[in-house]
Amino acid sequence: MPVLPFKWESSFLEVLDQRLLPGTIKTIRCHSPADVAQVIRDMAVRGAPAIGCCAAYGMALAIKKNSKSQALNSKHKGIPYLEFRISSLELRQLTAAAHLLKAARPTAVNLAWAVDKMMNFASDLSTGGNLFRAMVDEAKRIESQDVHANRAIGKWGASLLKKNSIVLTHCNAGALATAGYGTALGVIREGHSKGKIKKVFVDETRPYLQGARLTAWELDQEHIPHELITDNMAAHFMKTEKVAAVIVGCDRVAANGDTANKIGTYGVAVLARYHGIPFYVAMPVSTLDLTINSGAEIPIEDRSSDEVVMVGKMRIAPLHTRARHPAFDVTPASLITAIITEHGVVKPPYTKNLRKLKWTTQKP
Amino acid sequence: MPVLPFKWESSFLEVLDQRLLPGTIKTIRCHSPADVAQVIRDMAVRGAPAIGCCAAYGMALAIKKNSKSQALNSKHKGIPYLEFRISSLELRQLTAAAHLLKAARPTAVNLAWAVDKMMNFASDLSTGGNLFRAMVDEAKRIESQDVHANRAIGKWGASLLKKNSIVLTHCNAGALATAGYGTALGVIREGHSKGKIKKVFVDETRPYLQGARLTAWELDQEHIPHELITDNMAAHFMKTEKVAAVIVGCDRVAANGDTANKIGTYGVAVLARYHGIPFYVAMPVSTLDLTINSGAEIPIEDRSSDEVVMVGKMRIAPLHTRARHPAFDVTPASLITAIITEHGVVKPPYTKNLRKLKWTTQKP
Repeated sequence: MPVLPFKWESSFLEVLDQRLLPGTIKTIRCHSPADVAQVIRDMAVRGAPAIGCCAAYGMALAIKKNSKSQALNSKHKGIPYLEFRISSLELRQLTAAAHLLKAARPTAVNLAWAVDKMMNFASDLSTGGNLFRAMVDEAKRIESQDVHANRAIGKWGASLLKKNSIVLTHCNAGALATAGYGTALGVIREGHSKGKIKKVFVDETRPYLQGARLTAWELDQEHIPHELITDNMAAHFMKTEKVAAVIVGCDRVAANGDTANKIGTYGVAVLARYHGIPFYVAMPVSTLDLTINSGAEIPIEDRSSDEVVMVGKMRIAPLHTRARHPAFDVTPASLITAIITEHGVVKPPYTKNLRKLKWTTQKP
Repeated sequence: MPVLPFKWESSFLEVLDQRLLPGTIKTIRCHSPADVAQVIRDMAVRGAPAIGCCAAYGMALAIKKNSKSQALNSKHKGIPYLEFRISSLELRQLTAAAHLLKAARPTAVNLAWAVDKMMNFASDLSTGGNLFRAMVDEAKRIESQDVHANRAIGKWGASLLKKNSIVLTHCNAGALATAGYGTALGVIREGHSKGKIKKVFVDETRPYLQGARLTAWELDQEHIPHELITDNMAAHFMKTEKVAAVIVGCDRVAANGDTANKIGTYGVAVLARYHGIPFYVAMPVSTLDLTINSGAEIPIEDRSSDEVVMVGKMRIAPLHTRARHPAFDVTPASLITAIITEHGVVKPPYTKNLRKLKWTTQKP
């Protein structure tokens, strides 16, 4: 059974600290939106769908305290959960939480999407009731929809693969990056169960090493054959072994199909094109941002130099050397063979075809 | 003053242990060909020209012991250093040393080139004399020629750059990879002194991190502006900043211009081509191997999985995960804009133009 990146525990959110994987399994308890914002900012939890789900629970946590008194009041009056509308205090608390959570990381659109969805849900709650419980239930729906989306992505994606394919993936778009199962790794899981995966080349994905630490860990647990490579080996193996497809996740897809994903994805896409290898992006529709026309409008998060020059406790560069650290890059739509969604495989022209997607969840 | 990777100390070779840089400066003393083979195999010293020079001294060390008695004998007879021809014992010792040294690392041709050159020198020593001293002198000539070649490469290469260029380099082809000054870094040093280098993007170069540990260190010492990047960031910065050229060293260049160099070089060359950026290889003629027609004939060294999954003392991947570790890759001549040699800049067609190179040192 795959390990999950977070779990709602009736009154708090428990988050697996992915920075310590695969060596150590430790969780962090989040009791407030600030706690959730911090685990997202510090990358204890990461992956666009996963941080979206966590942020949804973070929004619920914003009104946990006053909702307790609401519940008591409503029980006292004998008509539980049906009396209270959102108060101006709660609105202020939710607005503050939304601001805090959205600012935690800028690139993945799922974060803002989930926060806005929770905010709209609270505002629209015309029947009143226990807002906290209602919001937790809504966060659970978001979580559950993500798992369903992943399973569907897995099936659609696997249909693109032939028997015994060697595939290459970058970063981690697995169970640990989502509410479970994974997007790109969902395709690989489903493909493996159908005899379509001979081997997975796993880019280690510097600087955070999500490939080495997380993807290899997930594949190892499910006995899916894989070989770890440094990011700079991808071209060599594309030339010397029969890589049938590259499959990656994404953090934000613009209306024209331009895709932001973990730094290094763009380079892999260029290499795939050069070697004539299909390049697939696995995307739940929650990652599609139709409000922006192209990748040029996607904000790219700059993270600290220290996360590059320090590996664990070891400094790998001279003291005066500074490193650049864009956390993401943008792959132009022209390099993407197809985008795999829960509603089917979308092919170019993306500007036209992404708009035709049937939504299970409305964008705000 | 740049730190040197090795130094001859009258009766032994002192080698800087580059595995510990930049944190620790420690040297290893080599008293025999076996000692030299080990520091090459273990990558305490690396870089095609540097391991060539060390191997030359290693050949001299093969006959150190018996040469002592030669020297005494010849002094005793009053005609020092002019009496002895190579004996059958010495020939056996040299042959064994040649075998050992050549087997230390297979890809860089400089190693075999220097060993063969020393072997031929010893065999041709028709005047006799103190063979050990004569061989040390020959190794010193190889070392000195390499420095001169680097300086010339620097000048030729810098002529290709415009004022205030941003350049990108992979691995370390600096003073630490040669007898001093460097090939690719020689071009950057010379270019910087002429106001042609605005900034150097330094690929960290996993798994051995030669870029982060060695190239950044050399650039830092000479106050040449640089920014460290993970290997997977190269494409992003080629797209978002004006990278004017990529300059790399090489371990073996075939007659048709195909070039083996540190793993990752091929990928950088593909990315450079995609972005319309010139891709230059800096090559002393000792790295040219006219005995092979193409890169397909270059043996690529496979190193251990551990060197990928262990960073310092930290394991970055699950226990069962194995990593691939080709130490080099081959960049096809078609992706190389020009090859910078000590005799000038060679442009395609390489098969024709590499043969026209004027040799300072004959290939065996």
